[in-house]
Amino acid sequence: MGRIIVEVMPKPEILDPQGKAIAGALPHQGFTEFTDVRQGKRFELAVDGAVTEEALAAARRAAENMLSNPVIEDVVGVYAEDQ
Amino acid sequence: MGRIIVEVMPKPEILDPQGKAIAGALPHQGFTEFTDVRQGKRFELAVDGAVTEEALAAARRAAENMLSNPVIEDVVGVYAEDQ
Repeated sequence: MGRIIVEVMPKPEILDPQGKAIAGALPHQGFTEFTDVRQGKRFELAVDGAVTEEALAAARRAAENMLSNPVIEDVVGVYAEDQ
Repeated sequence: MGRIIVEVMPKPEILDPQGKAIAGALPHQGFTEFTDVRQGKRFELAVDGAVTEEALAAARRAAENMLSNPVIEDVVGVYAEDQ
């Protein structure tokens, strides 16, 4: 079984309240190393057999059209996962 | 500025209703290549300067303790992003 990873993040200019909440909470737990946090999504798409170029192309279309909201999100990665 | 990526996915044995909903919707949009979908989270943690081993170790602790729920989620990746 092959697997395609799709990564979606909020656009840099869009406020990310979840990320901000985490960034605000981390120092209270002793994590002072991090200056900012942004939270996005990671999808795993399973395919039968190996990942083909056609499946990758379909995943890119699905990423743009169904897995992300292009108004507020960017697709930052679509790639076959090493098994 | 350095950046650390943290990837969190629902455990394989845990039902993932968001992923199931997407898997059910994809064929209706013409995407018949995908046999399963799972949805997880992707975090970007910003650090001042380069990503150090100490910052990576802190990110691993934060991933286990704050960015994931170990009952239902696995941390599947913590790594420095190439800038």
